[in-house]
Amino acid sequence: MPLVLIDDEVRQVLTMTGAIRVIEDALREQAAGRVILGERVNMLLPNGWMRLAPAALLFEDVLGYKEFHLTRPSGLRYTVHLCEAGSGRLLALMDAKYITAIRTGATSAIAARYLAPAGAATVGMIGSGAEARTQLEALACVRRLQQVKVFSPHAERRERFAAEMSTTLGLAITAVSSIDEAIEGSEILVAATNTRGQGPVLTGNHLRPGLHINSIGSTLPSQRELDHSAWPVVDRVVVDTRMALTESGDAIAAREAGVLDPLKVVELQEIVSGAVPGRSSKGEITLFKSVGTAVQDIAAGYYVYKEAVRRGLGQKIADFLSIKGIG
Amino acid sequence: MPLVLIDDEVRQVLTMTGAIRVIEDALREQAAGRVILGERVNMLLPNGWMRLAPAALLFEDVLGYKEFHLTRPSGLRYTVHLCEAGSGRLLALMDAKYITAIRTGATSAIAARYLAPAGAATVGMIGSGAEARTQLEALACVRRLQQVKVFSPHAERRERFAAEMSTTLGLAITAVSSIDEAIEGSEILVAATNTRGQGPVLTGNHLRPGLHINSIGSTLPSQRELDHSAWPVVDRVVVDTRMALTESGDAIAAREAGVLDPLKVVELQEIVSGAVPGRSSKGEITLFKSVGTAVQDIAAGYYVYKEAVRRGLGQKIADFLSIKGIG
Repeated sequence: MPLVLIDDEVRQVLTMTGAIRVIEDALREQAAGRVILGERVNMLLPNGWMRLAPAALLFEDVLGYKEFHLTRPSGLRYTVHLCEAGSGRLLALMDAKYITAIRTGATSAIAARYLAPAGAATVGMIGSGAEARTQLEALACVRRLQQVKVFSPHAERRERFAAEMSTTLGLAITAVSSIDEAIEGSEILVAATNTRGQGPVLTGNHLRPGLHINSIGSTLPSQRELDHSAWPVVDRVVVDTRMALTESGDAIAAREAGVLDPLKVVELQEIVSGAVPGRSSKGEITLFKSVGTAVQDIAAGYYVYKEAVRRGLGQKIADFLSIKGIG
Repeated sequence: MPLVLIDDEVRQVLTMTGAIRVIEDALREQAAGRVILGERVNMLLPNGWMRLAPAALLFEDVLGYKEFHLTRPSGLRYTVHLCEAGSGRLLALMDAKYITAIRTGATSAIAARYLAPAGAATVGMIGSGAEARTQLEALACVRRLQQVKVFSPHAERRERFAAEMSTTLGLAITAVSSIDEAIEGSEILVAATNTRGQGPVLTGNHLRPGLHINSIGSTLPSQRELDHSAWPVVDRVVVDTRMALTESGDAIAAREAGVLDPLKVVELQEIVSGAVPGRSSKGEITLFKSVGTAVQDIAAGYYVYKEAVRRGLGQKIADFLSIKGIG
């Protein structure tokens, strides 16, 4: 019988380290051809949008999709739906708000594992929202962090972030009053902004040799956080999917400015699988640009499903799908 | 609380006349701009595929999508998912196998209402499968049928179809042994074949002045039932969506043969709304080419949902979707 899992249950079972492990596995399998990432659709609505994104993990016998919709003013709702890939049988429906946050952080951490300087222990954060939190939590799973500085435009918000995340991660986090201060002395830079059309915040002048940047705040054409002047300064651009090049406002702006060099761009799966090396020199400036993929959602969702089954969580519902034979 | 509806419950409430009414309304509203039909995706799998197709009926405050997947050898599974368009709240999940069959028949009947000769009472059927049944049932709702002839390659199957559908519809249906016999004296021709790569069955030579054809058996590039020679003979091509021109193997073959005249093609919504007239002369040969749309699925699914609520049917499940605010 299919399981229905609510947000509370998903939070009980999904850990950041678990998500990092299963997503890294899925990326390796994707590079080996045992994962299928479908195209995705975005239906615009007068008050928001609905997006649908399918993927199949053949090495796990799971097939599914993420559905998420924004209806203003109420907000965003996310679901992940899983079926057995072989039989087509429905396995689970689950709330995917937490999965979305965790998998985005986990994927950025995987990028940092391969691209940030070995032994990087210093992080600059631009942004202090919910996404910034999971980004930092994830980094703390792959690097032993010693110094974190956070900048966001509202002093009160960055102070709160610093105080709360210091407690969560057990290390001293400092709120700073400019992007330059956040970057100064940082080996990893996280851009997790919500610029709401105020334009890009990070320029080429901000970047220093050796820096690795995780940029996750520009997933729609209308969203910006990286000025086009940053692109020529970056030595390597790693994306979670090449769809990022047409979906991220930052990538679109870079292409329009003629500074998006396709030869610099690789997919994260190619690096995780070893087909393309990770960081190649101490001074290299690397950029991970994330728009999210259903591979990340289905990998994390299937982990949640298996854990929920093991612990007896969730509401069982009737297997409501009949089958039309193909005889 | 969201409702989960199984096949049995859907069958209890969904009538062909109800489906025809709500789909015709939805087509009229679509032409008026109060319906949004999203793009759709088709993810290919080693043993089948998964398709996702969203739509929103703004005049009904409903938003949703159909998901269907084929996993060989088990077969096809269909679901429809509905939310309130304004609030984004989940309303229902339902088995959509029956919805798919009924809405395909209903839409063809709507096409026949506008395109078949006034008072048409004679039907030729090519195909005797499940789809052929719902096609004929639907036609019987919009025309007072007096003569039906059915051809399909297996004598035993067409005889069974004739016997069973005679009882169902209360009129004498004759099994015949060739396409020509089925068409002879028929004002409406239904092509609902399952050619499985055996190639097209209906050629230009088969068609007679005044005929209206409903062709529903070529919804994928690999499927064929209409030879390219039929297209120049047809005066008007009506599609349920222009996506048919790239998805139907018949349309693809016609374009490749240079006989797909785009000026002949209109969408059914344009005819239902009155923007484009229906049948314009007695001798006109009209073709309705259907690949199905999510507008049909969501309109029929929402009708099912409202009827199920009225009758207290279905399993209520916890509202498992949390909301991420956009503040």
